[in-house]
Amino acid sequence: MTTHSLLILPGDGIGPEVMTEVRKVIDWFQTNKGIQFDVSEDLVGGAAYDKHGVPLADETMQKAQEVDAVLLGAVGGPAYDNLDFSVKPERGLLRLRKEMDLFANLRPAQCFDALADFSSLKREIVAGLDILIVRELTSGVYFGEPRGIHSDDNNPQNEGGRVGINTQRYTSGEIRRVARAAFELAKKRGNRVCSMEKANVMESGILWREEVQWVHDNEYPEVELSHMYADNGAMQLVRRPNQFDVIVTDNLFGDILSDAAAMLTGSLGMLPSASLGAPMANGRPKAMYEPVHGSAPDITGQGKANPIACILSFAMALRYSYDLGAEADLLEKAIEKVLADGVRTADLMGPDGGTPVSTSQMGDKIVEAL
Amino acid sequence: MTTHSLLILPGDGIGPEVMTEVRKVIDWFQTNKGIQFDVSEDLVGGAAYDKHGVPLADETMQKAQEVDAVLLGAVGGPAYDNLDFSVKPERGLLRLRKEMDLFANLRPAQCFDALADFSSLKREIVAGLDILIVRELTSGVYFGEPRGIHSDDNNPQNEGGRVGINTQRYTSGEIRRVARAAFELAKKRGNRVCSMEKANVMESGILWREEVQWVHDNEYPEVELSHMYADNGAMQLVRRPNQFDVIVTDNLFGDILSDAAAMLTGSLGMLPSASLGAPMANGRPKAMYEPVHGSAPDITGQGKANPIACILSFAMALRYSYDLGAEADLLEKAIEKVLADGVRTADLMGPDGGTPVSTSQMGDKIVEAL
Ligand SMILES: CC(C)[C@H](C(=O)O)[C@@H](O)C(=O)O
Ligand SMILES: CC(C)[C@H](C(=O)O)[C@@H](O)C(=O)O
Repeated sequence: MTTHSLLILPGDGIGPEVMTEVRKVIDWFQTNKGIQFDVSEDLVGGAAYDKHGVPLADETMQKAQEVDAVLLGAVGGPAYDNLDFSVKPERGLLRLRKEMDLFANLRPAQCFDALADFSSLKREIVAGLDILIVRELTSGVYFGEPRGIHSDDNNPQNEGGRVGINTQRYTSGEIRRVARAAFELAKKRGNRVCSMEKANVMESGILWREEVQWVHDNEYPEVELSHMYADNGAMQLVRRPNQFDVIVTDNLFGDILSDAAAMLTGSLGMLPSASLGAPMANGRPKAMYEPVHGSAPDITGQGKANPIACILSFAMALRYSYDLGAEADLLEKAIEKVLADGVRTADLMGPDGGTPVSTSQMGDKIVEAL
Repeated sequence: MTTHSLLILPGDGIGPEVMTEVRKVIDWFQTNKGIQFDVSEDLVGGAAYDKHGVPLADETMQKAQEVDAVLLGAVGGPAYDNLDFSVKPERGLLRLRKEMDLFANLRPAQCFDALADFSSLKREIVAGLDILIVRELTSGVYFGEPRGIHSDDNNPQNEGGRVGINTQRYTSGEIRRVARAAFELAKKRGNRVCSMEKANVMESGILWREEVQWVHDNEYPEVELSHMYADNGAMQLVRRPNQFDVIVTDNLFGDILSDAAAMLTGSLGMLPSASLGAPMANGRPKAMYEPVHGSAPDITGQGKANPIACILSFAMALRYSYDLGAEADLLEKAIEKVLADGVRTADLMGPDGGTPVSTSQMGDKIVEAL
């Protein structure tokens, strides 16, 4: 019988709290569906720094490379704001992305009908919204060399005497592989891809546009492809987000645009993400799953966190890493039911009332509904 | 008697159409207020390329350096999409910004009450919105070297064999001067500045944060300063934009965030901008003014363009470049009156009705109201 290996990295802030609820769901599947999960747990981010002096220990990195899937909570928090750049919590996350080569970050921005009123946008603009942002995750300005802060003391024109540098660098191969991921996903959805860059002012944007177009013309001519400047993309996301199906964009633009898109839905506490790499021996992609929300230090330890984004991230793992699509459906249905019943964590409490529950009660309700 | 020199660069698309309406306003001030404007006009963008083979002729650049203010319409359009990068319409604009050293780009995002219903956001979230984004405009990844697209043929791992590079580069001095501009502006408004970067993943972002903090601590301790990651900034702009007063950020983030902010207001056809540099001999800053909207090729030549953004840009010129604050007030009041009277270009036609007018009629109405 197959065992499904999973490395859980709760991380910082509300990460551990929401992960406790995912554990309940995993237990349910083990007990009631006879699915064997081989779950291990380790530290990442500030939590790892506190213990090891680095935001990701080598052993943890090694383990992440060996498992079928990694599930991460969140990293960072004010306690670590003044840490040196090289040991910031975020660098643990970036190391995982880079060394596992998780080049395609899938960020669905879905508006759950029961929550449409939480959006700052008008209901008619966000109701039913369902777009998927595919963000390149292992290259671009987050990783390009040269980088750093240097002294510029011998430049009398430079008050302060320092210079900060990062390099936006993309190879054609890096662009093609994430473009393929986007086209493949589009084929299973609305068959449309919009690629975003700043080809009008950046050469890396020109390369991006040309290579996405190349993949389209040579391999996916049947998918509808359009191009948009990223600033206009930000406008269009606010103006009429449902004009999009799949958006493919680079690491930095993807960071900003996917956060804006997530916020449009009013469902930030509900949004999962998957970061996928090349296929492993078992034929399934290397993968890490994490909620879109951050570590939320302001509500940490208060039982207020919504565990649904992290549980839905586990549902994505069921689907993409364990080939358990039916089980993923089951879990998603259970969450829908709980929401329809009016069960609400603090972030979901609106004028329409509902039953307020804690993080832990929400986990229990979802397991009950399974 | 002082003459006020102005170089008009209508540019492409709807640029010339909206500029015609600004001319009417200028004429009115000359005739009725005895203010002497020395207006010259020249080409920029695609229009300049068509005539000179470059998006900005040297003579035009020279003239721009000599006048009190430049007023630009818009650049770019599909006809120029396949031009070589070095002669793209946008490069004319970038040359002006760079050579005039217009480091502080002021982008107000205001929601005009009469137009609040045009926003895709709920009225209560955008009504009365009045934030000011100060975008660094002459440095960062738009200008950093090295840059370009190179062959990477000897790298067998790189399918496609090319690499695209841009460099995000900021000096401490560049950051300090735009920070000062932001703090000065904040003092005349809500006394709050929020600085946005990605200091968690980019060293240039760390330098940005440290230098803005330095200017604050040493020169503007009385202004309230906060820092936010740019991805969170995008979220917060969508969620609760009125939490901000002045936002200061770099060239690339500023491009995206200010476009998102502009779109929030529902008043894109109404938003002006000013790009300011160092003081000239007359004590006033080098300056270029332009509407936030683009060249809008889809409505070019149809009399549908809203000239208000460009006329309000001229109002900013009255205030910042000609020291004619009372006249700027007068012009802004006239525009308010016209809107209150229900006069509406196509983009402003909503369910509440109003009197539909063409670009030209809108200009006439504003002059009448003066
Ligand atoms: C935590 C941070 C490094 C990260 C990023 O910028 O990629 C986060 O914002 C995200 O989007 O996953
Ligand atoms: C036209 C383009 C070069 C420009 C930019 O990216 O700066 C525009 O988007 C703007 O914001 O003024």
